[in-house]
Amino acid sequence: MDILKYLKTNAKRIDDNLDKYLPPEDEYPDIIHKAMRYSAINGGKRIRPILCLAACETVGGKKEDALMVACAIELIHAYSLIHDDLPAMDNDDFRRGKPSCHKKYGEAIAILTGDALLTHAFYLFSKGKNPEQNNKILEEISYAISTFGMIGGQVVDMLSENKLPDAPVLQYIHTHKTGALICASVKAGCILGGGGEKELDALTKYGELIGLAFQIVDDIIEIEGEKGKMRNSDIEQSKLTYPAVYGIAESKQRASRLVTKATILLDEFWGKNTPLYQLTELIGNRGY
Amino acid sequence: MDILKYLKTNAKRIDDNLDKYLPPEDEYPDIIHKAMRYSAINGGKRIRPILCLAACETVGGKKEDALMVACAIELIHAYSLIHDDLPAMDNDDFRRGKPSCHKKYGEAIAILTGDALLTHAFYLFSKGKNPEQNNKILEEISYAISTFGMIGGQVVDMLSENKLPDAPVLQYIHTHKTGALICASVKAGCILGGGGEKELDALTKYGELIGLAFQIVDDIIEIEGEKGKMRNSDIEQSKLTYPAVYGIAESKQRASRLVTKATILLDEFWGKNTPLYQLTELIGNRGY
Repeated sequence: MDILKYLKTNAKRIDDNLDKYLPPEDEYPDIIHKAMRYSAINGGKRIRPILCLAACETVGGKKEDALMVACAIELIHAYSLIHDDLPAMDNDDFRRGKPSCHKKYGEAIAILTGDALLTHAFYLFSKGKNPEQNNKILEEISYAISTFGMIGGQVVDMLSENKLPDAPVLQYIHTHKTGALICASVKAGCILGGGGEKELDALTKYGELIGLAFQIVDDIIEIEGEKGKMRNSDIEQSKLTYPAVYGIAESKQRASRLVTKATILLDEFWGKNTPLYQLTELIGNRGY
Repeated sequence: MDILKYLKTNAKRIDDNLDKYLPPEDEYPDIIHKAMRYSAINGGKRIRPILCLAACETVGGKKEDALMVACAIELIHAYSLIHDDLPAMDNDDFRRGKPSCHKKYGEAIAILTGDALLTHAFYLFSKGKNPEQNNKILEEISYAISTFGMIGGQVVDMLSENKLPDAPVLQYIHTHKTGALICASVKAGCILGGGGEKELDALTKYGELIGLAFQIVDDIIEIEGEKGKMRNSDIEQSKLTYPAVYGIAESKQRASRLVTKATILLDEFWGKNTPLYQLTELIGNRGY
């Protein structure tokens, strides 16, 4: 399977469907709908929704069955970025090479745009065909992005700025701030694809491994750089990162071990034929 | 029926259950859980959750069946107040006589506390016994607080500051910013109480009337004052209000007409024996 083609095709599929699921930008009050689209349809790599689609396929489902939830997950990711970028938080003026939402639309509209994307995602969760499945997705995702998941991670991330390196705190931040939603994306795909209990357990474990690996690789890229990405902003803000605690070499080793564990787990259950298999290698090696 | 006793008993019931449904304040990371409780359990009148419970009873349900959703609705109201109070929005330093969330915990934690209360409310929607009902509640509430409801109202409210009085814009703001969630609270109670289609239609109409009446009375109180409430903050900010567009006397008449319509509607369907009947009069006459 050509994984780069798979990524490209599905990123486009997500973008096309975000366009379909978001309110039209001329709908009153248009400024908020413009801002929602500005922040959600902006050339992101769509890692979370693609993991959701791939997990759905892995357990025998059709991608189409996971598409709306996958898009909703991307809206949640976009909400978290908008609020993280605010002056009171990370104060980032740029996001993916464009002015961040509050630089483009002002702070008030940016706060409301985050709120609106989160709310719209939940609305989409109510629109699936199967109410029981919708309910399960709602439960999984709302927990993953709660104070016991993503928000908790963001709180601790902020509180740990300019503090001494602390391995357990770092672990908490990475598994919660980034890991929880990535893991929930995989689980949601499994649920939507009709995966059984054992498959869900395996993919939960897989999601935890890959969620942490993703963030470690992201930390490394922050230092080593990647084309088109602003470098060192985490270091400038004295964020707690893997390289800060373990150094670059050991961070790479740790990411690599997580990826290996994740691929072994996939192989045991589904062989090498699932798109997750190659996606995992890509996340580990290229910082996808 | 002693409506004041009904209010007091149920406000306490809501507070007790908010205490039960919110994460413990010593749970890690504790600052966000403290801030959630600070903003949600603060002596509010609990109009929205009480309307939800009363609507549930009106269609023959038990209050207990609506309690968790009623609490979740109050969490959503609390989230909206925290974000509205932020410096970038209304910049209010006080809320119900105490420092607003961002004055107490700082702006970053306040933004995240609003996010967390909204997210936790949605999590609670997944926890009802009946997945189909949960799904219906999710759909109703998420739409009511979307850019086509509450958030839309807040956007237009901000954009209309310091503009000339404009009746259609005022109508949009009031029915969306305040009315939509009040109406959805009534509808949710009806759904949870097992109300049929005709009852839901009637209570939807009722919720629209009472939602608008509530906000008009609130506008009037802003000018005429109410014990313990900060006065004139809307006027200082040149907000679009009913008195600004219609004057005090006509605003009172309009509120009164809405209340009369609402009570007639209740009377036709359920007689005067529903708690909603007296609640409606209270909202109209006392600015409850």
